[in-house]
Amino acid sequence: MHGHARHTIHKDHVHHGWNNAFPPRLTIAPGESVEFETLDASSGQLSRSSTAEALKKLDLAFVNPVTGPIRIDGARPGDALKVTVLSLKPSGWGWTGNIPGFGLLTDQFPEAHLHHWNYDPGLKPAMYGPGGRVPLRPFPGTIGVAPAAPGLHSVVPPRNVGGNMDVRDIIAGTELYLPIEVEGALFSVGDTHAAQGDGEVCGTAIESPIDVALKFDLVKGANLRFPRYVTPGPVTDHFDKKGYEVTTGIGPDLMAGARAAVSEMIDLLGKRYGYAAIDAYMLCSVCADLRISSIVDVPNWVVSFYFPRIVLE
Amino acid sequence: MHGHARHTIHKDHVHHGWNNAFPPRLTIAPGESVEFETLDASSGQLSRSSTAEALKKLDLAFVNPVTGPIRIDGARPGDALKVTVLSLKPSGWGWTGNIPGFGLLTDQFPEAHLHHWNYDPGLKPAMYGPGGRVPLRPFPGTIGVAPAAPGLHSVVPPRNVGGNMDVRDIIAGTELYLPIEVEGALFSVGDTHAAQGDGEVCGTAIESPIDVALKFDLVKGANLRFPRYVTPGPVTDHFDKKGYEVTTGIGPDLMAGARAAVSEMIDLLGKRYGYAAIDAYMLCSVCADLRISSIVDVPNWVVSFYFPRIVLE
Repeated sequence: MHGHARHTIHKDHVHHGWNNAFPPRLTIAPGESVEFETLDASSGQLSRSSTAEALKKLDLAFVNPVTGPIRIDGARPGDALKVTVLSLKPSGWGWTGNIPGFGLLTDQFPEAHLHHWNYDPGLKPAMYGPGGRVPLRPFPGTIGVAPAAPGLHSVVPPRNVGGNMDVRDIIAGTELYLPIEVEGALFSVGDTHAAQGDGEVCGTAIESPIDVALKFDLVKGANLRFPRYVTPGPVTDHFDKKGYEVTTGIGPDLMAGARAAVSEMIDLLGKRYGYAAIDAYMLCSVCADLRISSIVDVPNWVVSFYFPRIVLE
Repeated sequence: MHGHARHTIHKDHVHHGWNNAFPPRLTIAPGESVEFETLDASSGQLSRSSTAEALKKLDLAFVNPVTGPIRIDGARPGDALKVTVLSLKPSGWGWTGNIPGFGLLTDQFPEAHLHHWNYDPGLKPAMYGPGGRVPLRPFPGTIGVAPAAPGLHSVVPPRNVGGNMDVRDIIAGTELYLPIEVEGALFSVGDTHAAQGDGEVCGTAIESPIDVALKFDLVKGANLRFPRYVTPGPVTDHFDKKGYEVTTGIGPDLMAGARAAVSEMIDLLGKRYGYAAIDAYMLCSVCADLRISSIVDVPNWVVSFYFPRIVLE
């Protein structure tokens, strides 16, 4: 139990997909705080002893469980829900998987692969052989409110109301503003990650059960189009002290540019450090950042992929 | 003259567009260094006294002049040219313009606007009213070698051989590797910027004449597909000390996501700080960063736009 939290929602209170007909597990007033227990993104289908075989059998109807929903008293469509991340309590175990059919380079990596992380809950860098040390910075990958559209909606795509955004900077101290579309907001959170690079290129991060304490406030009549957030300080200082190896992809399509830049980095890590391509791909997913360097020099754009040298030096 | 440089190429030795038939201005051996004087991106069509009228009359055949080319002895197609940025010598004057028909949101900002910067060559943050203080970090926006394809090629689009990449992290200490396509490499540089955010969203940065000293080496048989680079340290520490305001654009198209995120930031800066939309747009271009937060959660991606709070606090 975090000192800040006034309520707790246990991890038996998860749901799969978004549906504004799901009944709230708890109603709170604006200004109150809640601690959420979470399941890992497999909903417990993977454990510390799982092999890649378990990834092939993953029941996708149960991935990315989210804990909730909670109802915020007085929340109305058009308001924004301000969510302040108070603290995160990492479990010390996580996994990164290459799931067939999923990921930026799924055509090049069709086989299931699974890596287990047993990391220090005090967040020392996590080891990744040969010689990799990945800085950790936990955050919830899926955080959002119920959409107005009726019925069940897949949890996989992020939406204007948030959800599976995988924004790795929603860390302790960040203030997130979500557009509210239904009475009471109906907020849920899950898919917690111990570390991730911008892009989450292989499709998974360090997927890890992490309890999350959040504070909720309302901004009346904010009429946001999309989520926005405010970070409390630097967002890459856990990665950047030794600089970056950077690859680029240049051309008229940002997606193709991103794919090229990631492919080039996988080649570089293989040649330089001896990583198998699949291991380099999964390592990139947990620590390397996709940035748009230029987007105006028609007709070609530059997407850059930043791999932090601190991981391998 | 920089202490490192062994040769100097003056700014009367510029060319417009890329053409591997342009004769070299200088031939050097690998390991040698050269200081390049540069013109601003307007080729001197804009000066300290210009108004927005001058932007409308800009002769686009002469934009982005580059100084060179220089021939590197022994460079062959398939080799990489390693370019180490030794130092940059800012002039203290620059401009940011909204050029009709150019920029990420050109449909929303059809009018010419011009802002002059008179900055401290010692690189104190540059003022931008009301209350903006933009951290400076100079770099060359256009840096590359001649393409193998014959004839004249526009300087505007970046290519696999580099060129107008507008990668704002090619700063002093960065090592850039360019794929060589022709004998002698035929390297040129220009379009120097005193500051820019990732994306360069309005289409221009702080466009400023800056002398650049570079060292050249060859990596035989590197067979790069695209440029890559190595940064000597953090790349956002001039921006990030007070954190970021971040807007997002979520949907199935990265370009639409980038446009939405930038639009939302312009709205936020207008409401919060009283900036006119065009001024906010141009300010974003010189200091805010486009990042791809997630690119795997089919069918929607998250593009985030990071505005450094240090600029306005």
